[in-house]
Amino acid sequence: MPPSLFYFLYFLLSTITSANALKPTFPSLQSLCLQQNPDNKSDYKPHFFPQILDHFTFTPQSSKIFYQKYLLNSEYWDGPKKRAPIFVYTGNEGDIEWFAANTGFLLDIAPKFRALLVFIEHRFYGESMPFGKGAYKSATTLGYLTSQQALADYATLITSLKQNLSAQACPVVVFGGSYGGMLAAWFRLKYPHIAMGAVASSAPILQFDDIASWTSFYDGVSKDFKDASLNCFNVIRASWDKLQVISTQEKGLQKLNRVFRTCEDIKSVYSVRDWLWSAFVYTAMVNYPTPANFMRPLPAYPINEACTEMVMPMSCSQQGMFPPSTFSYKEIEDDCMKKYGVKARPHWITTEFGGHNIEEVLKRFGSNIIFSNGMVDPWSRGGVLKNISSSIVALVTEKGAHHLDFRFATRQDPRWLVEQRRQEIELIQGWIHEYNMDFMKRKAGSSGVTGGGKDFRQR
Amino acid sequence: MPPSLFYFLYFLLSTITSANALKPTFPSLQSLCLQQNPDNKSDYKPHFFPQILDHFTFTPQSSKIFYQKYLLNSEYWDGPKKRAPIFVYTGNEGDIEWFAANTGFLLDIAPKFRALLVFIEHRFYGESMPFGKGAYKSATTLGYLTSQQALADYATLITSLKQNLSAQACPVVVFGGSYGGMLAAWFRLKYPHIAMGAVASSAPILQFDDIASWTSFYDGVSKDFKDASLNCFNVIRASWDKLQVISTQEKGLQKLNRVFRTCEDIKSVYSVRDWLWSAFVYTAMVNYPTPANFMRPLPAYPINEACTEMVMPMSCSQQGMFPPSTFSYKEIEDDCMKKYGVKARPHWITTEFGGHNIEEVLKRFGSNIIFSNGMVDPWSRGGVLKNISSSIVALVTEKGAHHLDFRFATRQDPRWLVEQRRQEIELIQGWIHEYNMDFMKRKAGSSGVTGGGKDFRQR
Repeated sequence: MPPSLFYFLYFLLSTITSANALKPTFPSLQSLCLQQNPDNKSDYKPHFFPQILDHFTFTPQSSKIFYQKYLLNSEYWDGPKKRAPIFVYTGNEGDIEWFAANTGFLLDIAPKFRALLVFIEHRFYGESMPFGKGAYKSATTLGYLTSQQALADYATLITSLKQNLSAQACPVVVFGGSYGGMLAAWFRLKYPHIAMGAVASSAPILQFDDIASWTSFYDGVSKDFKDASLNCFNVIRASWDKLQVISTQEKGLQKLNRVFRTCEDIKSVYSVRDWLWSAFVYTAMVNYPTPANFMRPLPAYPINEACTEMVMPMSCSQQGMFPPSTFSYKEIEDDCMKKYGVKARPHWITTEFGGHNIEEVLKRFGSNIIFSNGMVDPWSRGGVLKNISSSIVALVTEKGAHHLDFRFATRQDPRWLVEQRRQEIELIQGWIHEYNMDFMKRKAGSSGVTGGGKDFRQR
Repeated sequence: MPPSLFYFLYFLLSTITSANALKPTFPSLQSLCLQQNPDNKSDYKPHFFPQILDHFTFTPQSSKIFYQKYLLNSEYWDGPKKRAPIFVYTGNEGDIEWFAANTGFLLDIAPKFRALLVFIEHRFYGESMPFGKGAYKSATTLGYLTSQQALADYATLITSLKQNLSAQACPVVVFGGSYGGMLAAWFRLKYPHIAMGAVASSAPILQFDDIASWTSFYDGVSKDFKDASLNCFNVIRASWDKLQVISTQEKGLQKLNRVFRTCEDIKSVYSVRDWLWSAFVYTAMVNYPTPANFMRPLPAYPINEACTEMVMPMSCSQQGMFPPSTFSYKEIEDDCMKKYGVKARPHWITTEFGGHNIEEVLKRFGSNIIFSNGMVDPWSRGGVLKNISSSIVALVTEKGAHHLDFRFATRQDPRWLVEQRRQEIELIQGWIHEYNMDFMKRKAGSSGVTGGGKDFRQR
C-alpha cells in the first residue's frame, strides 16, 4: 500500500465521512514510521540454507537447490544439553526481516524459556528466490510456490538445523501470524514429529470452501465501523453510489483527484473504490490504539487474489457497508487461467489440510495448538474460535486486532492483552514440561519400539 | 519372481540343504496357482478417476490428468443415510486387482459393517499410468512416483467419491498391507480429516534411517530358518562359500546349471546367490502352512532397491545365515545417480513422516491406528510392535506371516489368527461407534466453530 493511500484516507475520513469516532484508531502518519522495535532488542543473524526446489517429486528439475534465508538469535538459548526449546517462526508472504521485527513476542519470551529463536523466510519471498527475481513471470517457475512446499522447507531446514546443533532432543514450537499462523497450525498437524506445539495467531484456516460464511469477513469489517460509529457506517455505505455518480459527471474524476489529493490522475472510479476498500479492511485489521504496534499491510494482500490454492471465497452481504457482491468459483478460475495460465484448485486446501468439521476431527486427533484471535480483526471469522480439546485451544479477545498478541509488549497494553499473552506462555510451558517428562521416562525405562523379541504378544 | 525360481528352489531345498523341516511351509507348486478366492466371493467393479499428476506444484505440467483405477464393491453397503462406513484399501506397488483378490479380510468383514469397499490403485502401477507404458524410462516421468503423491491421490479420490455418493458423513477407514500398510498409517496421520482410522498390516514404517537395526531384517529371516531347523540354517550359512568355490571351478557354472535345472545358462554365481537370497526371504515372509493363503512376492521386491525415497538400510550380521555385509548410503546414492540420474533422498521419509521416537510423538498426537505384525515375517522388525496409546495399538502374533491377517479366513486358520482378526474388528467397531456418537452430538447441539459472536471470550 503506497503512502499516498494514507494521505488519501486521512482526507477521506475527515472530509467525506466525518468519521470522528474512528479517528483515534486510525493510523496516524507518524505511526507509519514503524518503530516496531524501539529498544533495538532485536539481534538476528541471517543464514542461508541449501533448500530443495520440489520435495514431492524426483524429476530432474526437482533437486535444484535454492538458498533459503533464515534468521537466528541464540542469545538466550540454554543449548542442547539442557534441552532448551527452539522457537521457530514459520515465515509468511514477505521479507523475513519484517516478520522478525514485528513479532516481538518471541524476543519478549525468549529469556524466560531460554529459547533459540529461528525465523524462516517463505520460499519466493525476500531473498529466498528459487529462480531469482524473474520467478514471478511464469507458472513454470512460480508453480513451486505452494504452502505444502513451504511446510516441507521448514521441516527439512529445522531437521538439519537441529542436527547441526546436536539439538535433536530439544523441543520445537512453531509460531506464526496470519498466513504464517495457518502454516504454523498446519505444520503441527502434518509434522508432529518435528514440532511439538504451535501458536497460530489470527490464522484463518477455515476461510475456505463453505466452512466460514462467505460474507463473514466483510461483515466483520462493517461491524467494526458500525461499533465505532453508526453514522460513519452509514456514510460509507452510501458513499459507493455517490462516488459512482460523481465519477460519471463531467470532470467528475478530476473532482475526485482534487478531493482525495491523489498523486496521479485516476483513470476510473474503481481505483478510488479499491483504495477505499483496502483501507477500510486494513483499518479494521489493525484497529488498536498503540501506535508502535501498528503493522503495515500484508505484502501479498489481498490473499484471496491468489490463483492457485489459496482461494478464500468472500462476498459482501446486503447488511454490510460494502456494495453487495457475490463470489463465483468459475469467475476466479477463468480469471486465473486468463491472467496466469494456471488452473486454480479452489478445494485443494481443505483436501490437504481439512477444515470441515474441524471440531470432530481434531477432538480425537492432534494436540498442542493455540489458535489466538481478536474479534475486531475480520480475519478472526475464518479462525478457530472455540476450544477443540484440552490441548487444542482457542484464545479469543473481543478487542484484539490482527495477531496483536505477537507484537512487542508495551506499557500501554490493556489487561486483556497482557492476560492473553500470559495464557499463551503458560500453555507453552505446559507442553514443554510434558515433553521433558516424557523424555525422562524414555531415558529411564523403555527399551524402544523395536527392541526385544521374547515378549511379543497380542497386547 | 519367475516360475523358474520356484523350480529352482524346490530342487535346491531337496538337494543341497536337506531342509526337510522347512518343506511343509515352503510353497508347493500347486499353491502357486493362487486360488485366493475359492468361493468367487469377490465382485469388484473397476472405475477410473481423473487424477492430477502433481498435487504439490502449479507448474503447467502439474495439472496434467491421468486415469487412476479403483475398484468398488457396494454389495454390502448400507448407504449414506445410515452413515455406513467406507473401507478403502490404499493400494501398493502392483495391479490393484491382485491386492483386492488377496485382501479377503475386507470382503469377509464388509457384511458385518455394511461397508462400501474401495481398492485404489497406486499411481504408476497396473493401469494407473500417468505416461503410459513408457513412464519407467526416465526420471522426467517416473519422478512423479512418490508416496506423498500417492497419498494425495487417495485424499483427492476419496473426497470426490464421497461427494458423488453424498456420503460426506460416512466414516472412512483405510487398510493396507506391507507398503500399502505404510501408506494406510501415513494416510491416517496426514489426512485425519479424510480417514478416521487405519489398519496397517505388516507395515515397516520404522525400517528407515537408524530406527530399526540395520541387520534386523536378515536376522529375522535367519531366525525363522534356525527355528525350523538348526541343520538347515547351518547348511545355508555354509552354502554361500561352497557356491563360490564351485562357480570358480572348471565347468562350475555348468554344474550349477545342472544341479539347479535352470532354464537358461547362468553367467555368474551371483544370479544363483540372488535367486537363493530372494527365495529365503520370501519363504520367511510367507512362512504359513495354508496353501490358499500364500501370496506371490511383491512385484517391486526388493523395496530397498528403490532409488528415490524408499531407502531402507539393511545389512547382514555375522550371526545370520547370509554372507555378512554392510550398508552404505553413499553407495546407494552413487548407484542411483549412475543408473537413473536420480539424486536419492535417503532421509526424506523420516523428515516427512517421522519414525524416530515414534512412541513419544504419537503418544500425544493422533489416534485410531492398528499396527498388526507377525513375528515370523522379517518385515515385522521395522514395524510398530508396542502399543503407543489407547487408540494407537500394536497387534503382534508370534507365528504370523506377512499381512496374514488380511487374507480370506479359512477353516484351517489357527486360533491366534482368528483372535487377531477379532481384535481388529472390535477396535474398528469402537472407532465407528465413537464417530457416530460425535456426529449425533454435533447434530444435537453445537452451532459450529465459527458461529455466534456474543459469547467470544478467552476460554
